[in-house]
Amino acid sequence: MTFRAVVLTLYPEMFPGPLGISLAGRARDEGKWTLDAIQIRDFAADKHRTVDDTPAGGGAGMVLRADVLASAIDHARSLNPDAPVIAMTPRGKPLTQTRVRELADGPGVIVLCGRFEGFDERIFAGRQVEEVSVGDIVLSGGEPAALMLLDACIRLLPGVMGAASSGTEESFENGLLEYPHYTRPAEWEGRTIPEVLRSGDHAKIAAWRKSQSEIDTRLRRPDLWERHDDARVQSASGARREKKD
Amino acid sequence: MTFRAVVLTLYPEMFPGPLGISLAGRARDEGKWTLDAIQIRDFAADKHRTVDDTPAGGGAGMVLRADVLASAIDHARSLNPDAPVIAMTPRGKPLTQTRVRELADGPGVIVLCGRFEGFDERIFAGRQVEEVSVGDIVLSGGEPAALMLLDACIRLLPGVMGAASSGTEESFENGLLEYPHYTRPAEWEGRTIPEVLRSGDHAKIAAWRKSQSEIDTRLRRPDLWERHDDARVQSASGARREKKD
Repeated sequence: MTFRAVVLTLYPEMFPGPLGISLAGRARDEGKWTLDAIQIRDFAADKHRTVDDTPAGGGAGMVLRADVLASAIDHARSLNPDAPVIAMTPRGKPLTQTRVRELADGPGVIVLCGRFEGFDERIFAGRQVEEVSVGDIVLSGGEPAALMLLDACIRLLPGVMGAASSGTEESFENGLLEYPHYTRPAEWEGRTIPEVLRSGDHAKIAAWRKSQSEIDTRLRRPDLWERHDDARVQSASGARREKKD
Repeated sequence: MTFRAVVLTLYPEMFPGPLGISLAGRARDEGKWTLDAIQIRDFAADKHRTVDDTPAGGGAGMVLRADVLASAIDHARSLNPDAPVIAMTPRGKPLTQTRVRELADGPGVIVLCGRFEGFDERIFAGRQVEEVSVGDIVLSGGEPAALMLLDACIRLLPGVMGAASSGTEESFENGLLEYPHYTRPAEWEGRTIPEVLRSGDHAKIAAWRKSQSEIDTRLRRPDLWERHDDARVQSASGARREKKD
């Protein structure tokens, strides 16, 4: 099954952009995914191809019209009926690696990119659009976020990453940050590679990496650590309960 | 002062990409920011232009060498000596709008994009590199994240966004999600614009927007809401303390 990405945007010329190069570009050449970048303006109803209007209640900027967005989404759904529709918006649910994996396992994704002040809110309920955020920052439009979302999905498609092991032992896959990496030279500007990594003792190396991963998550991302810890406590108490029953 | 972006990457052809178009593209044409996309491979020491090697301690993938990265960073610093060096990595500190504003107020940024398994950890302390993450997902490389970081900075540069008011009343600028937007038509598929927004009563509209912003943050992003609430309590108790003194 080919992963089909349909992007609705006012700047279709931004796509494939970086996704036409390197890993994603090769995967596209090999037919592992396809891309339609569709101009939202083509779904405007007037001859000026108007897609936006002033915000109800006043204020700066312009808002994308629900009726125009709906026509664009309906067209996208006709191309990929089973794909979820995702709007890139800072008001959305933060994207997680778990959600990326789900998307990569599916038929593709329809991505709605905003510009200006944003979308008419009614589009989300009116067309079952999932609001997704890729970080607590504000962009000039949804396009850079869409490129990021698609890149994250594409690398997980079957056959895209070389080594079978790549992609499972990395940040967020087990709810933790990945451990730090080192490579040659063994000494660089007086800084050495941790002794254990040069020991050849695989069990010790695995234990060091696990502990490093936990330490770094706790120090750098207490929010992730807390969720990971909660999950661990829950699964442990689940195990105890099972024993008891 | 022109904002100078220097990107260190194995895929300089990914830049400017989407940043050459629309808001960011126009701003670049007007000289509001400049971009150097520099090939890391140019700083390899051997004739094969090797930039990576196998991970110390074993495992899949390849790791970018500290010595090659250091030469590339030293060159970038010669172009923009006062700019911070930021590596895009899932192990980094999550990027915030506050940090984006700081960067946009400065001389620019040097962005280090990884590929493969990542960077030799020694580079971060060895060259005072700030590790930054743009979301809890894993990309094929740092490039899509770098595009996002730069887009977020560029829109805040003086004169880039049209209306003076744009950019202050939006998500994260006050620690909250932005309120929802609506525009014409007043009724779309049976869905109407909230009554208050059509009242013309500016005080009521402002109050509704503030309350919507708070409600949505609390429901959608309890993590943001908690930090916002903490900050409010602290500033309130600070105010009480001042009164007492």
